[in-house]
Amino acid sequence: MALRFRPADTTFYDLFTQAANHLVDGAALLAEMLGEGNDREGIAQRMRDAEHAADETTHAIIRRVNSTFVTPFDREDIYSLASSLDDVMDFMEEAVDLTLLYEVVKLPSELANQVEVIQRCAELTAESMPRLRTMADLEEYWIEINRLENLGDKSYRRILAKLFSGKYEALEVMKLKDVVDSLEAAIDAFETVANIVEQLVVKES
Amino acid sequence: MALRFRPADTTFYDLFTQAANHLVDGAALLAEMLGEGNDREGIAQRMRDAEHAADETTHAIIRRVNSTFVTPFDREDIYSLASSLDDVMDFMEEAVDLTLLYEVVKLPSELANQVEVIQRCAELTAESMPRLRTMADLEEYWIEINRLENLGDKSYRRILAKLFSGKYEALEVMKLKDVVDSLEAAIDAFETVANIVEQLVVKES
Amino acid sequence: MALRFRPADTTFYDLFTQAANHLVDGAALLAEMLGEGNDREGIAQRMRDAEHAADETTHAIIRRVNSTFVTPFDREDIYSLASSLDDVMDFMEEAVDLTLLYEVVKLPSELANQVEVIQRCAELTAESMPRLRTMADLEEYWIEINRLENLGDKSYRRILAKLFSGKYEALEVMKLKDVVDSLEAAIDAFETVANIVEQLVVKES
Repeated sequence: MALRFRPADTTFYDLFTQAANHLVDGAALLAEMLGEGNDREGIAQRMRDAEHAADETTHAIIRRVNSTFVTPFDREDIYSLASSLDDVMDFMEEAVDLTLLYEVVKLPSELANQVEVIQRCAELTAESMPRLRTMADLEEYWIEINRLENLGDKSYRRILAKLFSGKYEALEVMKLKDVVDSLEAAIDAFETVANIVEQLVVKES
Repeated sequence: MALRFRPADTTFYDLFTQAANHLVDGAALLAEMLGEGNDREGIAQRMRDAEHAADETTHAIIRRVNSTFVTPFDREDIYSLASSLDDVMDFMEEAVDLTLLYEVVKLPSELANQVEVIQRCAELTAESMPRLRTMADLEEYWIEINRLENLGDKSYRRILAKLFSGKYEALEVMKLKDVVDSLEAAIDAFETVANIVEQLVVKES
Repeated sequence: MALRFRPADTTFYDLFTQAANHLVDGAALLAEMLGEGNDREGIAQRMRDAEHAADETTHAIIRRVNSTFVTPFDREDIYSLASSLDDVMDFMEEAVDLTLLYEVVKLPSELANQVEVIQRCAELTAESMPRLRTMADLEEYWIEINRLENLGDKSYRRILAKLFSGKYEALEVMKLKDVVDSLEAAIDAFETVANIVEQLVVKES
């Protein structure tokens, strides 16, 4: 700790934690969207707000990189971690957005499994960001994210099998597949975040 | 200026400007393709020519990186800027190519908005490449590209809503969506170019 | 040679060669899958085994990066080469997996061209990995991969034209397109591997 203590850079960790907390909010909104009879327009609006807040945080990180002489790790790594966290949010928002845009009436119940994985990934990511300060105890985080991504992949494949089973019309399959693909992309983006953290730890060790 | 003047590297900026000018040509061909009754086979051929010319420029940049001892910025950054400019061209060509390949008879008029965004992005990118020499006055460029990308995204979503509204047959939706996705990918690729430039400026500042 | 001889790092080249050899195995399984009347369940199981073996190799590379003080080239480059080789495997497995998941009865015969390209790319990549040790004679490898990728692209487009010609039902088009896209993505991923190798050689020269 003593050796790593660089007071000027404290806020980078706070900002990364903030970025991950926006993902926790976004994941909660995805869960709400699955509930039948919920106000989807309202949820979509709150998702857009969460996405704007996440953008603000991303820009705050970039501004701070630009104005700080000594950064806690390479500028490019800060940039890529920030933008990969931002990507997760974009995919979450896309899922909600497409549901409304395509006027999907009923989302298959299996989507709940994907959303659960997203919620768990968001929590884990938010818990882990403060540990970037010491670069310690991060291995369990990326191992668990990889495990969750595998689980998510299994749900994703089960949903695809159902969509293509012949029960749905082609146009409906296309709509639902786009929503499900966005959720799958959000999970993959969490894995990208974890991979970047893993590489950071490799670099610093 | 005086400090940055490195005569041997002048052509890198010329080559990047050339690469961006190929994108201006490609964007003009996209606009032509939207006109009804135009000779699509001829346009597709000219697009393939533009794409080959862009490839030549990309390879000239790579060759120059390989044979130059002092490069104006990191070799890897030159490489990634060149290949991201090349990506834009590939997506433009893909849009024209798929239109012919799928034998799309009528392109929805809304595609004009996407193509306008692409034309504006191409011009802006071409105007900005020479400024890499001084790394000055580039901020407005990437901010404007980001704004245009947002506009493009709005058009894209409006087109998707129309495609899935029930007016089109499923197979036609699949065809048109692939064309529209290529245009959207071209716009996103312009944003990637702008992000790389932004990171370059961050690095050098 | 003498100058580059670093006994401690020998296994990196062995591990990359091993990773590429898993791709040769995967490509052979793709070819088997095209044969009519073959035991697809069995092939899918062997593909999953190959994919697990490839994962093991990837993790062995990462572990070695983490525990080795002097690496033959930048840690991040080792990481990105390993993960791009892994991506190829994932796309190959995806193609087999989707064929079963979607219960595709008949694969169009044109897929054989794509699979031939994949087999040739896998062999070339496996032959080239040991040459990373001396960084010599690698140019033909990446030039040939680029040529093969172009060939693959032509096959891909011919298949798309056939799929959208009106002979297939929309849902069948969606299924087959996903399989064909996975094969195309595998070919593109081979090109990414070749690009990374090219950049490595550029860096070291």
